[in-house]
Amino acid sequence: MDMKERPTACVIIIGNEILSGRTQDVNLNFLASNLAGMGIELVEARVIADIEGAIVSTVNTCRSIYDYVFTTGGIGPTHDDITAECIAKAFNVELEQNQRARELIADLCERNGVELNAARLRMANAPVGASLIRNSVSGAPGFRMDNVFVLAGVPRIMRDMFDGCKKDLMGGPLVLSRTVVASLPEGVIAEPLRALQDQFPGVEMGSYPFYQDGRFGTNLVLRSADETLLRKVCLDVFNMVEELGGGPELES
Amino acid sequence: MDMKERPTACVIIIGNEILSGRTQDVNLNFLASNLAGMGIELVEARVIADIEGAIVSTVNTCRSIYDYVFTTGGIGPTHDDITAECIAKAFNVELEQNQRARELIADLCERNGVELNAARLRMANAPVGASLIRNSVSGAPGFRMDNVFVLAGVPRIMRDMFDGCKKDLMGGPLVLSRTVVASLPEGVIAEPLRALQDQFPGVEMGSYPFYQDGRFGTNLVLRSADETLLRKVCLDVFNMVEELGGGPELES
Repeated sequence: MDMKERPTACVIIIGNEILSGRTQDVNLNFLASNLAGMGIELVEARVIADIEGAIVSTVNTCRSIYDYVFTTGGIGPTHDDITAECIAKAFNVELEQNQRARELIADLCERNGVELNAARLRMANAPVGASLIRNSVSGAPGFRMDNVFVLAGVPRIMRDMFDGCKKDLMGGPLVLSRTVVASLPEGVIAEPLRALQDQFPGVEMGSYPFYQDGRFGTNLVLRSADETLLRKVCLDVFNMVEELGGGPELES
Repeated sequence: MDMKERPTACVIIIGNEILSGRTQDVNLNFLASNLAGMGIELVEARVIADIEGAIVSTVNTCRSIYDYVFTTGGIGPTHDDITAECIAKAFNVELEQNQRARELIADLCERNGVELNAARLRMANAPVGASLIRNSVSGAPGFRMDNVFVLAGVPRIMRDMFDGCKKDLMGGPLVLSRTVVASLPEGVIAEPLRALQDQFPGVEMGSYPFYQDGRFGTNLVLRSADETLLRKVCLDVFNMVEELGGGPELES
């Protein structure tokens, strides 16, 4: 990829518990923030069920489109953890017992005085050619195949694994962000904001209405990799809101 | 669709603010729970950017696969609200000013003593052939085109719009759910759980590990449309956990 471009990424959340409404996902927000913080553009996220066909086809579609793909979920020891075998199928390689993963899991079992049973050994399975992703929380590693990073679903473990991946991710120019908070409904701001957006296409302007104390307000989020331009445009937006009587406040 | 089958659904979350990590999405969880509560199977969710090409192609893919598609976001008055025009493009029809939507928005402006300006009138635009979805929170309606329900992104408004859609959604048999909480790590439960899953394919068994007070525990979530079978299998899982010394507790 061009060094001046930002690499692209996709997150695939594998989990019936998210789709059934039982669990509120928090992994996407963590990955989105952290990728943004490295200059990697998260273009898309998908939430899919624990179904082989869905996992294989989604992984294959996304790994061909995006520079990086991160999956969360489905790498534990139970029968519904099928991500590793699906990744092997997606890459058309065998699933094997990874010797380094087996050592890590055996060490962990010994330290914790628990049995190294068949279920726990399943967590040592990885596609042929995978490299491991460390798990300093609970031991059983994730893995990487080419541009696909296979992470746990438990948020604390997922975050630890992602931290361990960072060294292998190439970032791009950071997108900087400033927020002008206006005590005005969007309907008042929309026209002058559009004029500013037309004037400064180098700054992406997002408008997000909110309720507070029974009144509408709007967060105007300005994003650009050009810090000088961003400052200038932020001042213009601030002044625009002030002229409309919207008592602007700046958030970084 | 077959009346005995559960209709399928897909949620498309349109929003740069989710992909940049600025905002934690909460709409998916609401829609997932409510669809499950109506016997509609949420098969997939996608989070995509405020980009015309992405919206048009994702909507067209998903509306051809699933019985129902729900979009959230991008129907306000600002320049970055492009969902209505993208839905028109996806259906290959014109975007028009919907007269009933115009009346609703004009009434609202009059009641609130604000100007009916061009930006606010944009919210009256809908594809030709759309039917409106009421918004009792802030007035400007969502709309439905065929099997695609176009909802707001602001959670309070989205929830109100979804409530207004419920009468138009055909549900299927409810999937009932019971949860056995085990004070055991997954590695201990995995093998007997797999045996029970093999024995009772009519009950979907999910295993979700968690941390609490520095120890691993596991939620075993059992789901089935067959209440009698679910009760029987729930008792078996409960007994299995008890035999393993996992002090099981039942959650509904």
